[in-house]
Amino acid sequence: MGRPTLTRIVRDLPALVPFVGPEAQERARGRPFVLRLGANENVFGPSPKAIGAMIEAAPQNWMYSDPENHDLREAIAAHHRVPADCVVVGEGIDGLLGLAVKVAADPGTVVVTSDGAYPTFNFHVAAQGARLVKVPYCDDREDLDALLDAARRREARVLYVSNPDNPMGSWWPAADLERLIAALPDGVLLLLDEAYCDTAPPDAVPAIDISNPQVLRLRTFSKAYGLAGARIGYAVGSPDLICQFDKVRNHYGINRVGQIGALAAMQDQPYLVEVVRHIVNARERIADIARSSGLVPLPSGANFVTIDCGADGAFAKAVLDALLERDVFARKPGVAPLDRCIRVSCGRDEDLGIFGRILPEALDAARNRVASA
Amino acid sequence: MGRPTLTRIVRDLPALVPFVGPEAQERARGRPFVLRLGANENVFGPSPKAIGAMIEAAPQNWMYSDPENHDLREAIAAHHRVPADCVVVGEGIDGLLGLAVKVAADPGTVVVTSDGAYPTFNFHVAAQGARLVKVPYCDDREDLDALLDAARRREARVLYVSNPDNPMGSWWPAADLERLIAALPDGVLLLLDEAYCDTAPPDAVPAIDISNPQVLRLRTFSKAYGLAGARIGYAVGSPDLICQFDKVRNHYGINRVGQIGALAAMQDQPYLVEVVRHIVNARERIADIARSSGLVPLPSGANFVTIDCGADGAFAKAVLDALLERDVFARKPGVAPLDRCIRVSCGRDEDLGIFGRILPEALDAARNRVASA
Repeated sequence: MGRPTLTRIVRDLPALVPFVGPEAQERARGRPFVLRLGANENVFGPSPKAIGAMIEAAPQNWMYSDPENHDLREAIAAHHRVPADCVVVGEGIDGLLGLAVKVAADPGTVVVTSDGAYPTFNFHVAAQGARLVKVPYCDDREDLDALLDAARRREARVLYVSNPDNPMGSWWPAADLERLIAALPDGVLLLLDEAYCDTAPPDAVPAIDISNPQVLRLRTFSKAYGLAGARIGYAVGSPDLICQFDKVRNHYGINRVGQIGALAAMQDQPYLVEVVRHIVNARERIADIARSSGLVPLPSGANFVTIDCGADGAFAKAVLDALLERDVFARKPGVAPLDRCIRVSCGRDEDLGIFGRILPEALDAARNRVASA
Repeated sequence: MGRPTLTRIVRDLPALVPFVGPEAQERARGRPFVLRLGANENVFGPSPKAIGAMIEAAPQNWMYSDPENHDLREAIAAHHRVPADCVVVGEGIDGLLGLAVKVAADPGTVVVTSDGAYPTFNFHVAAQGARLVKVPYCDDREDLDALLDAARRREARVLYVSNPDNPMGSWWPAADLERLIAALPDGVLLLLDEAYCDTAPPDAVPAIDISNPQVLRLRTFSKAYGLAGARIGYAVGSPDLICQFDKVRNHYGINRVGQIGALAAMQDQPYLVEVVRHIVNARERIADIARSSGLVPLPSGANFVTIDCGADGAFAKAVLDALLERDVFARKPGVAPLDRCIRVSCGRDEDLGIFGRILPEALDAARNRVASA
């Protein structure tokens, strides 16, 4: 018996996982979380029409889903007023990020992102064997000028920008992004991750320009639409770019129930408006809770609020640990100076009532722990 | 405005799609199929317990699914009496085939398969930039000796074998596969695609040997379990091999409803036994229908029957077209000499009653068409 030879790229990859899920933490802890506010899910849930459509679809799950994702792509295209051949559906933005890197970044070429930005993107870049160049945040925002400069100097093939940003919740006005887009060097593909755009101020979302093959807009049903479990994301771009995805995507990879649920969710825009109102209210309440404890909530255009704990990464980690011990699932940025913060997803009134009671306790515990360390 | 630079591999790929779905054909025809017997789905559907679990899970679809797929992997591991770290869950076998190629076949290295075997595997090999070497079938079976010989001579990194085979339905006894496995050259990974093993004779399925890192066993919930729409496949192998997948898989790629449905389906083995009985009966009935029209059904261990139409590929194509015109969705092998056949998935009694009436008509139409051509 011998051994298989692994690819050079995979052999050298570390066995890292982008995010440990709350379920794994619950198994390790031996008890469930009371509040699930760490994964930027939408606890308000999807449209009842989407739930109804998924329930109706369940008995039909013996059928493969349409590999062209026709009905959903048509609905997305109509929503954005673009032709359907400008839209590709994928297994969440995560899946599309992997495909985009495969389409545009040969092994050894440079990909630019922000230091502390979405780890799953970095994971896909590593798996493609491309070289990641990380640009520091500036004032808790992705530094558009520095990102552009790095892309130019390093002859990048892909540039990743998220707007609003995760994990900070910050955003740039459309005009700034449009300046970045206009200045993109030839050969670069901009991945504009807009997972959180549905909850952002309207002026944070540039108009979609399908004539520009250098820009891919990434959207999802996981956040405002409340369908994280469905694993349905999509990308909008020029037909020349979008058709490249058909060469590499898993054509039968989209699940039937999720696809049907996403279609129904998109068709229920009044519900989306209502949910966004809940999310905006929850952001304000989380900010109030933070301020009540003497912490500084950062402005957020996303479905979470990032809270500056007022000290270093070790202190914020102590606060997070104290929250986890009190059965609150939250997360925090991992890279300095962002790591002085914790990140709390929007919850329902009852969730935030509990959070408002637990945060002061957790802060006290963290202060005691750091003082005695 | 410039253009993004595409990767060398993707730039050179043809814009080919592995399979056109029945929905696309229905849109082109302007009317639905009456019989859906072309995609080897399980028309008997999943366990009612799986349907119930999916219905119950639908309102919770705002949560991401556990990225470790813990509960499902534990159930799969218990079912096969292996440790859970021998199991990885993916977006159908299709998704796992793409990952397996990424793990084991550097661009430019050789991958061996049978000429006429599963096109989606070839699609993934092309997207990886590996070189596909195709070995002819022998007597409508994958030619194990010739495949092994090609793997040895061409220094292959990956060897693909399906058992039972799609599109022919043929299979090898476990003893022959075990001889192949024992003779694998060092450095080769065998992908043993067993999508159809649940409907095969028991002696067609080798025992799982997790001590051998050269063999990956690929299974699915899409066929006998009746959950094609759920997109849940899995691979079983040595922990050393399985852990490589964690370096490249889309950790949050598995949908929640499908994962919960698959778990419930696996836990209802009595239902699986009942469905397999229906499938075996349907195979016999399709064979009878074929023989009644003077055609030769091939022996099948799968959930379909491949029917030798007794002439060349052009005639079989005419038969298939005549079936499609009569609203029967079926498919056929694409490569000679397999292409003399059509492939019909197992249906319910009422489906096969209709098929039994339509096949003679379609044959007459095909004979007339070929005679007048």
